[in-house]
Amino acid sequence: MTTASVPADLDAHLKANYSNALDELFAFLRIPSVSARSEHAADCRSAATWLSDRLTHAGFTSALMETPGHPIVLAEWRGAGAEAPTLLIYGHYDVQPAEPLELWTSPAFEPQVRDGRIYARGSVDDKGQLYLHVKALEAHLAVRGTLPVNVIVLAEGEEEVGSENLEQFLEANRERLRCDGVVISDSTMFAPGTPSILSSLRGLAYVEINVRGSNSDLHSGMYGGAVVNPAMALAQILSTMHDAQGRVAIDGFYDDVKAWPEHVREQMRTLPFNEEEFRHEVGSPALGGEAGYSVLERLWTRPTCEVNGLLSGYTGEGAKTVLPAVAMAKVSCRLVPDQDPRVVEKLIAAHVARVAPPGVIATVTALHGGRPWRAELSGPLHEAGVFALEAAFGKTPVVTGEGGSIPVVGDFERILGAPVLLMGFGLPGENAHAPDEWISEENFRQGMRAAATLIDQYAVNR
Amino acid sequence: MTTASVPADLDAHLKANYSNALDELFAFLRIPSVSARSEHAADCRSAATWLSDRLTHAGFTSALMETPGHPIVLAEWRGAGAEAPTLLIYGHYDVQPAEPLELWTSPAFEPQVRDGRIYARGSVDDKGQLYLHVKALEAHLAVRGTLPVNVIVLAEGEEEVGSENLEQFLEANRERLRCDGVVISDSTMFAPGTPSILSSLRGLAYVEINVRGSNSDLHSGMYGGAVVNPAMALAQILSTMHDAQGRVAIDGFYDDVKAWPEHVREQMRTLPFNEEEFRHEVGSPALGGEAGYSVLERLWTRPTCEVNGLLSGYTGEGAKTVLPAVAMAKVSCRLVPDQDPRVVEKLIAAHVARVAPPGVIATVTALHGGRPWRAELSGPLHEAGVFALEAAFGKTPVVTGEGGSIPVVGDFERILGAPVLLMGFGLPGENAHAPDEWISEENFRQGMRAAATLIDQYAVNR
Repeated sequence: MTTASVPADLDAHLKANYSNALDELFAFLRIPSVSARSEHAADCRSAATWLSDRLTHAGFTSALMETPGHPIVLAEWRGAGAEAPTLLIYGHYDVQPAEPLELWTSPAFEPQVRDGRIYARGSVDDKGQLYLHVKALEAHLAVRGTLPVNVIVLAEGEEEVGSENLEQFLEANRERLRCDGVVISDSTMFAPGTPSILSSLRGLAYVEINVRGSNSDLHSGMYGGAVVNPAMALAQILSTMHDAQGRVAIDGFYDDVKAWPEHVREQMRTLPFNEEEFRHEVGSPALGGEAGYSVLERLWTRPTCEVNGLLSGYTGEGAKTVLPAVAMAKVSCRLVPDQDPRVVEKLIAAHVARVAPPGVIATVTALHGGRPWRAELSGPLHEAGVFALEAAFGKTPVVTGEGGSIPVVGDFERILGAPVLLMGFGLPGENAHAPDEWISEENFRQGMRAAATLIDQYAVNR
Repeated sequence: MTTASVPADLDAHLKANYSNALDELFAFLRIPSVSARSEHAADCRSAATWLSDRLTHAGFTSALMETPGHPIVLAEWRGAGAEAPTLLIYGHYDVQPAEPLELWTSPAFEPQVRDGRIYARGSVDDKGQLYLHVKALEAHLAVRGTLPVNVIVLAEGEEEVGSENLEQFLEANRERLRCDGVVISDSTMFAPGTPSILSSLRGLAYVEINVRGSNSDLHSGMYGGAVVNPAMALAQILSTMHDAQGRVAIDGFYDDVKAWPEHVREQMRTLPFNEEEFRHEVGSPALGGEAGYSVLERLWTRPTCEVNGLLSGYTGEGAKTVLPAVAMAKVSCRLVPDQDPRVVEKLIAAHVARVAPPGVIATVTALHGGRPWRAELSGPLHEAGVFALEAAFGKTPVVTGEGGSIPVVGDFERILGAPVLLMGFGLPGENAHAPDEWISEENFRQGMRAAATLIDQYAVNR
């Protein structure tokens, strides 16, 4: 057991300057940088400029880098020298739309602290989590005039609209952005007071299945009983996709699934998670899923096959006796390492071809795919993250997974060839994309302490 | 084998007056009595008046009977006396809308004969088939001054909009309409030159199945794998509704299915029906249905269970990673005697309750029901129909079935307590509800001869 602690000089500085940090965060939060709305384009640029100015003020060389969309803030501090390692800190200054406005207790762009929470659009996603890094870096430079490693801060303005220009930017600036590790704070802790490292993201293979029977819709009386019903055929196809144990029954589906390390599974099993509370939250009469795994394991470590949409025939009010000509299902699989979305799409297509009944033609079209990701959970950056979180929160961080996807994580790892540390300071119920978004003030404070500690400890570990 | 023939006096009269009959039918067809369009309400009344006048001219006592909708033409000839039997002939003077007008070769309400077919909206459905009875009755009264039985002609003007006021009219006039048999010509012959008696209609039990999982739509990444997907559950439920032989696998579903007389099945099997042509017409890659039955038996004599509609989650373009909260299917069963729609609805509900997986709540709501119908295929009216068709066409009629429903048939039989003879003169491809509707001129001519013969033969059989 390490006895991790926050370096005293940085800690004192952060404490002394805490009210400034909060004021500055509020100023950042007041800028309605909604990337999805063209009428907020100037606000996005204004948020980028504001952030860039703060980084310059902290001691960085910062500039707005133009993209076909909103600009990227790129700030660098290279004072540690070419031999020293480089960390890249990624975040985003854009926010989700605030609508429906009437459901906010206080206005979305007028930050307010209530019961230890800072309420505002962007407070947790991601301005608060990004700015705590800025303030931690500033503390280093203010107290010591230097940083023990080179640091790049990259903040984009299009995360909430799909990061459409980021991959291209990373590719085009690969040399300049070369680094030894990437730190992202844009996720949640498992529970209040439980610092967390997010160790995995699921990927996605999303397809559309179309089943065609007759040339056109038929009268169910005149033709029913002699023509294969494509909606019924689709139901039969979909019903073969799971076995009785809730496993995906598509041939080859699990071939590339890498076993999770037993100690990680064990740690997930011991997390204080109340399945009945979870069930109550979603409102289902009972939970489901793959036999032999806990709910958290199902969500974080196991692949799925879900129907996302169904459409066939008559769906309006009342009765219409149509025998539909076509039926459609949107089906997607959440993937885990090392499943490949392109391979899974092909497995689905082969499965559908095998089980589709005669009398219909079933086609499978790939719509969208994304690779799964899993951290190594070792190495200097991961260990520095564990140390820093323990130092700030006084508790060893837990390792969590995430059932969804954050595509940029894979992009950073792939393009820059550097490990990614996902160290989030949000909390369950934070309303990231909903009214009354908040970040815990305590987490903002401890986040700055952890971020400041991380830099030192990474330099030590290297 | 009977040597059926058309009575010579009636035959001669019909032949001599054929061109008048055709002229009069054309006048009837020129009236655009579209019951569905309020702007044609006056045309509907005008068609009713025209028809009533023709019946008066033929020797009937005729009047328009008001209803909340379009009037009913009620014409009576009671000259055979109270001891003589009474036949009721039913038809309808209203027609389907003619749109899309641009797809008609000649205008919908300007009758034109081409290649032995009379083209016009209403030519076969049902003005032509109704008017051939009027002319047959007129022939009797013109040649002989009398009819051997009492005759009621009842022509409604709302058949194409659901016959909404007919049942109430029959109930209210039950005594006045008391009769020994009902004759309806509003269906098709099996093939040109093959006179047909329609012996059965399927009923309907139409339900909606709703499956609910969570309280609201969920993110398929954050929740997928631990929550039961209602769309997948619905697919599983629907997939249990048939067995591998294409039989409906709902417990008790066949309990009330009455076996078809072997000689009727045998006759259906020998009808010249090309299954490959049928397949080509519907455009399906292969036909389907219940093992052990021909296509015609499947359509006419066997019950079905079909999906009429499916809806769940995201159905727009592209990919949306939603885990739906609800999924809906419209499901309907075509029924055969003696299945009861109310009973079948309950069987479906019990089946769904039994097979629905845990983790969802599935409900079944009955939307619409109709009873199946089957003729006795014996008795004086049926035998008179066989005789009359054979006399007119020189060929013993075949017995056919109909996969759909004609609700008024059951109403007549139930309310008036009289057997119904369905003796149609349409032909496959007649475009009854489509542009270029037609009736075969030959069938109009033979139909008058058959209708005239039927009256005599019914009196003989009684």
